[in-house]
Amino acid sequence: MLPAAMNPKLRAMVVGATGVAGQQFVAALSGHPFFSLARLCASERSAGRSYRESLRDERGSLRWYAGGQPPAEALELPVESAKEATTDGIDLVFSAVESDVAKELEPRLAAQVPVFSTASAFRYEPDVPILLPGVNRSHAALLRTQQRRRGFRGFIAPGPNCTTVGLAITLQPILRHFGLSRVVMTSLQSVSGAGRSPGVSALDIIDNIIPFIPGEEEKVERETRKILGACLGDGTDGLHIEPLAVAISCTCTRVAVLDGHTEAVFCATTRPAPIDEVKAALLEFGQELGALKLPSLPQQLIAVTDDPYRPQPRLDRELGGGLTTVVGRLRPERALGEHGVKYVLLSHNTKMGAAQGAILTAEQLLIDGYLG
Amino acid sequence: MLPAAMNPKLRAMVVGATGVAGQQFVAALSGHPFFSLARLCASERSAGRSYRESLRDERGSLRWYAGGQPPAEALELPVESAKEATTDGIDLVFSAVESDVAKELEPRLAAQVPVFSTASAFRYEPDVPILLPGVNRSHAALLRTQQRRRGFRGFIAPGPNCTTVGLAITLQPILRHFGLSRVVMTSLQSVSGAGRSPGVSALDIIDNIIPFIPGEEEKVERETRKILGACLGDGTDGLHIEPLAVAISCTCTRVAVLDGHTEAVFCATTRPAPIDEVKAALLEFGQELGALKLPSLPQQLIAVTDDPYRPQPRLDRELGGGLTTVVGRLRPERALGEHGVKYVLLSHNTKMGAAQGAILTAEQLLIDGYLG
Amino acid sequence: MLPAAMNPKLRAMVVGATGVAGQQFVAALSGHPFFSLARLCASERSAGRSYRESLRDERGSLRWYAGGQPPAEALELPVESAKEATTDGIDLVFSAVESDVAKELEPRLAAQVPVFSTASAFRYEPDVPILLPGVNRSHAALLRTQQRRRGFRGFIAPGPNCTTVGLAITLQPILRHFGLSRVVMTSLQSVSGAGRSPGVSALDIIDNIIPFIPGEEEKVERETRKILGACLGDGTDGLHIEPLAVAISCTCTRVAVLDGHTEAVFCATTRPAPIDEVKAALLEFGQELGALKLPSLPQQLIAVTDDPYRPQPRLDRELGGGLTTVVGRLRPERALGEHGVKYVLLSHNTKMGAAQGAILTAEQLLIDGYLG
Amino acid sequence: MLPAAMNPKLRAMVVGATGVAGQQFVAALSGHPFFSLARLCASERSAGRSYRESLRDERGSLRWYAGGQPPAEALELPVESAKEATTDGIDLVFSAVESDVAKELEPRLAAQVPVFSTASAFRYEPDVPILLPGVNRSHAALLRTQQRRRGFRGFIAPGPNCTTVGLAITLQPILRHFGLSRVVMTSLQSVSGAGRSPGVSALDIIDNIIPFIPGEEEKVERETRKILGACLGDGTDGLHIEPLAVAISCTCTRVAVLDGHTEAVFCATTRPAPIDEVKAALLEFGQELGALKLPSLPQQLIAVTDDPYRPQPRLDRELGGGLTTVVGRLRPERALGEHGVKYVLLSHNTKMGAAQGAILTAEQLLIDGYLG
Repeated sequence: MLPAAMNPKLRAMVVGATGVAGQQFVAALSGHPFFSLARLCASERSAGRSYRESLRDERGSLRWYAGGQPPAEALELPVESAKEATTDGIDLVFSAVESDVAKELEPRLAAQVPVFSTASAFRYEPDVPILLPGVNRSHAALLRTQQRRRGFRGFIAPGPNCTTVGLAITLQPILRHFGLSRVVMTSLQSVSGAGRSPGVSALDIIDNIIPFIPGEEEKVERETRKILGACLGDGTDGLHIEPLAVAISCTCTRVAVLDGHTEAVFCATTRPAPIDEVKAALLEFGQELGALKLPSLPQQLIAVTDDPYRPQPRLDRELGGGLTTVVGRLRPERALGEHGVKYVLLSHNTKMGAAQGAILTAEQLLIDGYLG
Repeated sequence: MLPAAMNPKLRAMVVGATGVAGQQFVAALSGHPFFSLARLCASERSAGRSYRESLRDERGSLRWYAGGQPPAEALELPVESAKEATTDGIDLVFSAVESDVAKELEPRLAAQVPVFSTASAFRYEPDVPILLPGVNRSHAALLRTQQRRRGFRGFIAPGPNCTTVGLAITLQPILRHFGLSRVVMTSLQSVSGAGRSPGVSALDIIDNIIPFIPGEEEKVERETRKILGACLGDGTDGLHIEPLAVAISCTCTRVAVLDGHTEAVFCATTRPAPIDEVKAALLEFGQELGALKLPSLPQQLIAVTDDPYRPQPRLDRELGGGLTTVVGRLRPERALGEHGVKYVLLSHNTKMGAAQGAILTAEQLLIDGYLG
Repeated sequence: MLPAAMNPKLRAMVVGATGVAGQQFVAALSGHPFFSLARLCASERSAGRSYRESLRDERGSLRWYAGGQPPAEALELPVESAKEATTDGIDLVFSAVESDVAKELEPRLAAQVPVFSTASAFRYEPDVPILLPGVNRSHAALLRTQQRRRGFRGFIAPGPNCTTVGLAITLQPILRHFGLSRVVMTSLQSVSGAGRSPGVSALDIIDNIIPFIPGEEEKVERETRKILGACLGDGTDGLHIEPLAVAISCTCTRVAVLDGHTEAVFCATTRPAPIDEVKAALLEFGQELGALKLPSLPQQLIAVTDDPYRPQPRLDRELGGGLTTVVGRLRPERALGEHGVKYVLLSHNTKMGAAQGAILTAEQLLIDGYLG
Repeated sequence: MLPAAMNPKLRAMVVGATGVAGQQFVAALSGHPFFSLARLCASERSAGRSYRESLRDERGSLRWYAGGQPPAEALELPVESAKEATTDGIDLVFSAVESDVAKELEPRLAAQVPVFSTASAFRYEPDVPILLPGVNRSHAALLRTQQRRRGFRGFIAPGPNCTTVGLAITLQPILRHFGLSRVVMTSLQSVSGAGRSPGVSALDIIDNIIPFIPGEEEKVERETRKILGACLGDGTDGLHIEPLAVAISCTCTRVAVLDGHTEAVFCATTRPAPIDEVKAALLEFGQELGALKLPSLPQQLIAVTDDPYRPQPRLDRELGGGLTTVVGRLRPERALGEHGVKYVLLSHNTKMGAAQGAILTAEQLLIDGYLG
C-alpha cells in the first residue's frame, strides 16, 4: 500500500504542456500527493517564456482548456524547449506531444527516466505495453524487457487511444467471466478528442456528424486486442504480448459533444451472459485496486446505470472525477452469436482517456516498484 | 408506365395535417401531377379554422416546419376534425396522426379508400405490408388479403419507421447479391424524428447524446425483417409475410442534428462480398424503377460516396430531394462472420422516412393498379 | 451579523418543487445553515407520491435538472398538492410556481408566513418590492406596508425576472457613482430560462436564434426601473417605490446556450465615467455585505475581467456558485450621450436569477429582522 | 438597362479561390450572364494543380463550403499562384484574399483592371469607396479620383465587412426619410464569418457565446458612417467622402449559428418615425434598382416580417438567394432620443455580406459605365 503522501515527492516534467492534454497533466499534478510539477516543456515558440505567458494569446486572453483556473504555481514556471529537453533534476516525465515529436523525444528521455505518454508513437512496438489501470497490470513486466533491449534506465509507457479506454475497460470483466468471441463498436466521439489547433471546426460539426476519424478505428481494434492479450515469455528471451484472438470491428464518428466519448458496444460471449451477472461483473471490476489507495483511483472504475436514458455525456462524464466509465442500456445480444450482451458506455476522453489515466498508471507503477 | 399527369387527379385528404409529418404531406402534394390536396383534418382544436389559422400561434407566428412557405392553395382550406372525418369526395388518404388515433381512425377510412400512413398502429398486423418503394413491391399483393379479411374497399398501407427506411433499402441489394446472416446497426438520429410537441428539448440535447429512444430498436429490427421477408401463400387462404430469418441487433441514439438519420451498419454475408461488387449492387438498386417514371422517384435510390468523410447529414440529406439514401465508408467486415461489409448510411427521416416516402408508395401502387 | 448556524433552523416549504426552478430550491436548501426543507408541494399529478417518485418518468428515469444528484433527504419527502397547501409547521415558503398559480396561492400562504417567489404575479403591485441582494436593501421596508394593507402576517417577496438580475446589479454601482441617463440592452438568453415543459425545442434553436421572448423586454425595463428606484413615503400613508426615471430599452433573444444569460449593455451616464473608476465601482459593489456573513453570498457580487474574450457563458457562469455577475469588455460609450460605458455581462439565470437569488434574499431579510 | 446577357462575357479572375469566400465567388460566377470564370489564383501551395485537386485534402475529400457541388467547368481550371498573378486575358478580378496579401496584390492588379474585393485592406483609404448596391451608388464616382491619383487603369472596389452590410442597408432608408442621430447595435454573428482555417473551433462555441471579434466593432462603426456619408468635391481636386456625422456604437459577438448575422439595432431619428412609415420606407428601398435588371439583384433588398419570432437565421437567411436583408421586430425606440425605432435584422454574411454582394456591385458598375 502506498503512503498517504510521499516526502519528498517525485519530480515530474510535463512535455507538450501548452496543448489540451498537456494542460490536463498540469491541472492534475497540482496538489498531487506523490508527484510535483518540476519542469514544463513545449514547442520552440513557447520556450523562454513563463507558462502564464505561453498560455496568453496576442490579446492577453488566457488559453486554458482544463477547467477552472490554471494552478498558480505552474503559471510562474519557465517553459523550456521540448526539443532540447533534458532529464536534469526530474524523476519522471508526462508527455503530451504529437506522435512525430514523440518518436524522437520520448526515447531520449526514457534513456534516463520513466516516460508516461498520451502519444501513439510507441504503442505498437513489441516491447511496449499499453497500460490501462485495473485492466492489464501484469503487462507492466514487459517494461523490464523494454529496458533490457533498449538499454533504458527509464521506459516508455504510453496510454491507449482515448476511444480504446472505455471499450477495453468494459470488455475485460466480460472476457474474464463470460469469454468473448466477437465485438462490434460504434463510437460517437466528442470534439475535444481532436484537440484545439485546429481541432474540429464549428462549421463542420454544428447540425452535423462526421462519420470518419483518420486512423481511429484501426487503433481501437489493435489496441484493445493488445491490452486484453496475454503477456507471455520468460526472463531469458524477454516477454511479449499475445493479442486477444477476438475479432473487433469499429466505426468511429464525431458528434457535437464537447467532452466524453459514447460507444455502442455489441459483443458475443463464449458462455451464457445473464444481464444481472454481467452487471455484477462490471460493478466489481477493479474493486481490488481499492486497497492500493491510489490517489487518482475513482470509487468505481465502472458504474452501471439502470436508467434507460443514461449514460449521457453531459450528465455523466464527470463521474469519479472523469475516471469512471459509465455503462448503461445493458441488454442481451443475440445477433452476433448464441450468447452476448450489448450496452452503451461513456468515457471521458481527456480525463480517463488521456492525462488523468496516465497519472493513474504512474501511481500504479509506483506501488508496483517500477519507479525507482 | 404512368402518364405524365392525370386528369382529373386523385383527390387526397391529409389527416394530422398540422404536425411536422402532416405539413410534409401538404408540401409534397402541392403541384403533384397525380394527387390533389382536397381536404385537411387535424385535432379538435384546429377544426373549423382555415389551415392558415390553424398554423398560427397566439401571436400570429406561422408554425411551418416543412421548409420554404406553405403552399398558398392549402392555406385557405378549412381544417376538419379528424375524429369525425369521412371519405366524402376523396380518393385516398395520407395519414400522419399518432398511433393511438390511427388505431381507430384509419380502419374507418380504409373501409372506403386507400390510407397511406406514417403511424405504426397497423405495421405489425399479419395482413398489413410495410411497403418501401423499390424494396418490396411484391408485398403489395397482401393488400388484397387485407381487403378480403377486413371487408375494406380501400386498405391501410403504413410506411416503415423512419429509422428502418435507410437500413432496409441498403440491406435489400446486399441480401439479393450476397446473402445476409447477421446485421448490427447503431443509429445517430436527428431531433426532427421526435416531432415538435414536445419533441426533443434543447436542454436535453445540446452538448449531449440521448442513448435511448423508446420502442425504436424493436421497431427497426422487426420491420426490417418483415420488409425483407417473403410474401407467401395463395389466393385461397390469403397471403402472409414470412420475415427474413436473419438476426438484426440495433442501438438507437439521438444526437444534436436537425434532420437526417445516420446509421453505422455492420453485416455478415453468406457469400463473399467484394467492396466493388457491393458498391455496384447498391448503385444499380432500384434503377429498374426508372422506367415507371414515378414523379417522386429520385434519380438514385442509393448513392455511394468514396469520400471517407461522407455522408454527413447537413451536407447530404437533401440529395434526391431527400429521397436518396447515401452510403459511405463501405469497407469489408470480418468480425461478424467470414464475409461481410460495413458502412455508414444517411436517410432523410422526415422525407424518404415519412411523408415523401408514403407518397412515393402511393405512386407505385397507382401504377400497379391498387388505387382504383 | 448572523450566527454561523441557527438552531433550530427555520422550516421551509418549496411549492412547485418538481420544475426546474423548484429543483434548484430543493438543491440549494440541502445543508443550508438556517433553513431546513420541511415540506414539498407540486401539482395535483404529483401529490401523494414521494419526491423521488414524482421525479421519475414512466420508464424510471429520474428527471433532475439541478446538477449532481437530488439530496437524499428530499427524495423521501411526500409531495403535497400545491392547491391545498397550508402553512402548518413551516416558517417560510419558497415558491417556484407559474404566475397564474401564484396569483391565487401566494397570498393565501403569505397570510401566515413569508413567501419568496420566482413568479412574476405580484412584482408590479405597488406594495410589493422586487428585492435583489446588495442592490435595494432599503426596499424591504415596503413589506411592512404590504403587511398592513393586506393584513398579512407574512408577505410576498418576488425576485426579479432572470434577465433583470444581471442588468440591475451592474447598473446600480454605475448609477450611484456616475448617474444614469439612458440604457440600451440586448440579451442573448439561454434555453434553461424557458424551463422544460415544453421549454425550447431543439428543432427551434440548433443553428438558430429566436429574436423574441414574449413579455421579457417589458418585464426587464419595468423591473429594472423599480429595483433602482427610491422607496419613499412615511409610516402613515405607507411607503411606495418611485421608479428610476431613466429610459431603458431592450431586445431579448434566445440562443443555443444551456445556462447563463449574456447581455450587451450600453449606458449613458450623467457624469464622466472613466473606465478604471467604473471597474473599481463594480468590483467594490456589495463588498459591505461581506460583514453580514450571509451563507449564500458569493465572494464577489460582480467580477470584472480584462480578457476581451470573456465573459463566456460556458466558462464563467458557475463563478461564485452561479451567484456572481461577470462583467467584461468594459469600454467607453459615446453614442448615447456625452459620457458613458458599454460592457457585456453574464448572469446565471437559474441560480442568481432564480432559486439561489431568492434564498440569498431570504438570508438578508432574516438578518434584517423580517423573518420573525 | 443591361442586356439580358453579354456576348462575349467579361472574363473574371478569382484570387483566393480556395477559401470560403473564394468558393462563393466561383459558385456565383457559374452561369453568370455577364461574367465568365477565366482564371483562378490561390496560395503557392495550390499553384500548379487543378482547382479540383486544390480542393481535395490528403484523403481525397473535396473541401467545398459554398453549398451544392462545385461547378464542373471550374474544377478543371488550373490554379495559379496569386503572388505572381497577372491580368493577361482577363477583364476584371474578384479578390477574396486576406488583407495582408491584398495590400500588395490588389494595387498591382488594379493598375490594369477593376478589382472587387472582400478584403479590408483599402476600405479606409480616402480615394476608395465602400460600395453597397442600392445604398451609395453615387460613391462610385470616387473611383475616378482613385484612378487619377494612383495611375490605375482599373480600380480597387472593396465591399464592406459582412457585419456592416445589413446595418448600412437598413439605416439608409431610415436616414433618408427620418434622419438619424444615434445608433446602437449588438450583433450575434455566425461562425462562417470567421472562415475555416482555423475559423471558430467547435470547442469554443458549442453551448457558448464569444463576446468579442477583434477589430469588428471599429470596422462596422467606421464603414457604416463612410457608406452613409456624402461624396463631395469636384473634378479639380478630386472627390472625397464625408462620413455621416452620427454616433454609432456596436458590440459584436459570435454565436453557434452556421450562416447569417443577426443584429439588434436601436436608433434615434431626428424626425418622428411611425412604425408603419418606417416599414414602408424599408420595403420600398432599392425598388428603383429593379428597372436595371441586375442579374443578382433579389426581388427585395429588404424584407420586413410581422411575425414577432422572425427573422431567424436558419429560416430566413436564404431569402432572395441570400441577398435580401430581413427585418423584424420593428418597434418604437424612445430610450435614445425623442423619436426612433428598434428592430432585429438578418443578413447572410457569406452571400450579400461577401462574394455575391461584390458581384452585385460589379453588375451595378458595369451598367453605370465603370467597367470599360
